[in-house]
Amino acid sequence: MARVSQAHLDARRRQILDGASVCFARNGFHATSMQDVLKEVDLSAGAVYRYFGGKEELIAAIVSEVLGQVRSAFEEAVELDPPPTPDVLVVSVLGRSLAARESLTVDGRPAFPRLVVQVWTETLRNEELAAVLREGYGAVREAWGRIVEVYQAAGMMRKDVPPDHVARTMIATVLGFLAQQSLFGPAPVEILGDGLRALMSVSQPRQEG
Amino acid sequence: MARVSQAHLDARRRQILDGASVCFARNGFHATSMQDVLKEVDLSAGAVYRYFGGKEELIAAIVSEVLGQVRSAFEEAVELDPPPTPDVLVVSVLGRSLAARESLTVDGRPAFPRLVVQVWTETLRNEELAAVLREGYGAVREAWGRIVEVYQAAGMMRKDVPPDHVARTMIATVLGFLAQQSLFGPAPVEILGDGLRALMSVSQPRQEG
Repeated sequence: MARVSQAHLDARRRQILDGASVCFARNGFHATSMQDVLKEVDLSAGAVYRYFGGKEELIAAIVSEVLGQVRSAFEEAVELDPPPTPDVLVVSVLGRSLAARESLTVDGRPAFPRLVVQVWTETLRNEELAAVLREGYGAVREAWGRIVEVYQAAGMMRKDVPPDHVARTMIATVLGFLAQQSLFGPAPVEILGDGLRALMSVSQPRQEG
Repeated sequence: MARVSQAHLDARRRQILDGASVCFARNGFHATSMQDVLKEVDLSAGAVYRYFGGKEELIAAIVSEVLGQVRSAFEEAVELDPPPTPDVLVVSVLGRSLAARESLTVDGRPAFPRLVVQVWTETLRNEELAAVLREGYGAVREAWGRIVEVYQAAGMMRKDVPPDHVARTMIATVLGFLAQQSLFGPAPVEILGDGLRALMSVSQPRQEG
């Protein structure tokens, strides 16, 4: 067997994950067969199964990759002094996630938001995938919680709210924005940045009057 | 044929919508048959078809009802002076939506968040449902936009952000919170209120230092 470079192996793995992402985004996990994936990536079964044992491994790898990148982005952010405010952080992290996958499309639209919603539905009936998602979500939630602690310690945010509640809210905002994109079409991530910035400016009316 | 009261007709309609909601939440729209719905509500085909022509009409009625209630809640809120701040408003409207459906469960968990995610997935392949959702979403977005204009006019929120961007962001937060509930289990809506309140308190670090 010919020796192949690591770069080649990585590129092949990337090609398979991207093709599977497009298939899952298009038809959902349940209705996608490994045959569909092979056809999409235009590789032999042998070539694909060398990397992934089946659909479950593919979807787990896709989910882990996305959540791992998000977690890394937060781990970098927590080291910055001062830390980026939530509006800036969300635009940066979500913008990167979307940009990294903008070449993947379904019916001419970005595949990623649609993939996210398809994964959620599959999660409702697939306990293994639910476990992968739960673990990744927990890690992202912890990373967000640490940034909230930094905000609070720096006097940038009120201290009487549990960091985890803020983490859940920020993640909800991003998940919901992805759901909107998948349902109603692509929209620049700056819309979300604007909305968060406006929310950060809200004051009680009696303090104004 | 015996005369039946409007109250009876309404109760029967409610019973069918609730049963269908549970079926769709459990297995998704695609995998649910009208037979499943008949079995769930324990009524004859004749009794059910008198109200709804089929699955499409059922799901459209469910979606329209939810979005109509949300829109009404916003239309009430915009009349208040001062208007409730975003954290209070979200907790009130989402709390009411969840409470109105708390008797509907799947595997002992609230059915509503799960139903929402199932509707999204179905929307990706059902153009009729997509149209219903788009219209309802547009109306909720307009209602949120009007409240944002009130905030801005009252000096409660910065004026340099388009109201629609804030509306999209606030809706995203609620949709994402529902997605989290369906994926990771129920959580009190006050968590989201806390998170929004914390976000409203964020200030730039250089203004603090």
